[in-house]
Amino acid sequence: MKEVIAVVRMDMMNNTKKGLTESGIDSFFAHEAQGRGWGFVNRKLIEGVEEGYEEAAALLGEKGKLYPKRMITVVVEDDKVDDVVETIMACNRTSKPGDGKIFILPVADGIRIRTGETGKKSIE
Amino acid sequence: MKEVIAVVRMDMMNNTKKGLTESGIDSFFAHEAQGRGWGFVNRKLIEGVEEGYEEAAALLGEKGKLYPKRMITVVVEDDKVDDVVETIMACNRTSKPGDGKIFILPVADGIRIRTGETGKKSIE
Amino acid sequence: MKEVIAVVRMDMMNNTKKGLTESGIDSFFAHEAQGRGWGFVNRKLIEGVEEGYEEAAALLGEKGKLYPKRMITVVVEDDKVDDVVETIMACNRTSKPGDGKIFILPVADGIRIRTGETGKKSIE
Repeated sequence: MKEVIAVVRMDMMNNTKKGLTESGIDSFFAHEAQGRGWGFVNRKLIEGVEEGYEEAAALLGEKGKLYPKRMITVVVEDDKVDDVVETIMACNRTSKPGDGKIFILPVADGIRIRTGETGKKSIE
Repeated sequence: MKEVIAVVRMDMMNNTKKGLTESGIDSFFAHEAQGRGWGFVNRKLIEGVEEGYEEAAALLGEKGKLYPKRMITVVVEDDKVDDVVETIMACNRTSKPGDGKIFILPVADGIRIRTGETGKKSIE
Repeated sequence: MKEVIAVVRMDMMNNTKKGLTESGIDSFFAHEAQGRGWGFVNRKLIEGVEEGYEEAAALLGEKGKLYPKRMITVVVEDDKVDDVVETIMACNRTSKPGDGKIFILPVADGIRIRTGETGKKSIE
């Protein structure tokens, strides 16, 4: 069992939700987040900070802002991870910086509160 | 060490908080989320989408909405996981769809920022 | 690859963001959360509840409130985990209860949506 976490553009949420549902993945949750990837930071500024320039640090503080994102969490069996990743990529890829990232984490177990079912049954 | 994540009804938050505290679990955090489980999606609509009916896709987009939830995160030693799961289940089980789910993830380590304590000591 | 989750004071967010960026860690995300650590709960009240005193339970419900926090998530290669932890500790340590906690979780893989890069390349 794996937890697939995707951090995507805020305005891609509806599209992703629809894509996941159409792929037969209809149990997931989401929340608002702020995020930032590598592409948004000017490397020259970081070098300036490392070399002790106060102005670079000031600019970095201003420019290194976080962007509003949506974080989507889907827990699926191992054999569905590729499907989920491909669906999220297809729904979110614009080829411009800011498309977001996906992380896959191991899950030890799941429980459906209503029935007490565990393991695979908890997420079917 | 394990991370126990529970996605529960919004109005169950206070009850769950109280239940956890009374069980001696008093370190945890929570945030708002939107979520959806299997029970909320009409399978006929998904089949319709798979067969190419545009109307089914439109309805699915509308009906497949996400419900406001609370996501609770508790990090505990392995031997307390069952207690946490049972407490959350007892506080949230109404036997109606939407009671929510619990996921258990492995945690490599924890650190208490104030003292620098790691491992078991960080969550005692 | 590891996910480093830090739950810190709300007003420490900007400082932490700046600290991480200056340490060369510039890809991360954050969201609002409510949380509580051990120090905020009166042990006497818990003992009272365990012994069946209704008044203790009532007080516990009221006093055991959650505090607004920020939850920061950074995914890095294993060899950068110590850097991230030290930076977050340096930015957040006031030595007063409420400084927060850090948890380290294993990550199976990462994917940059824009390019499809996986593993180490997804987070460089």
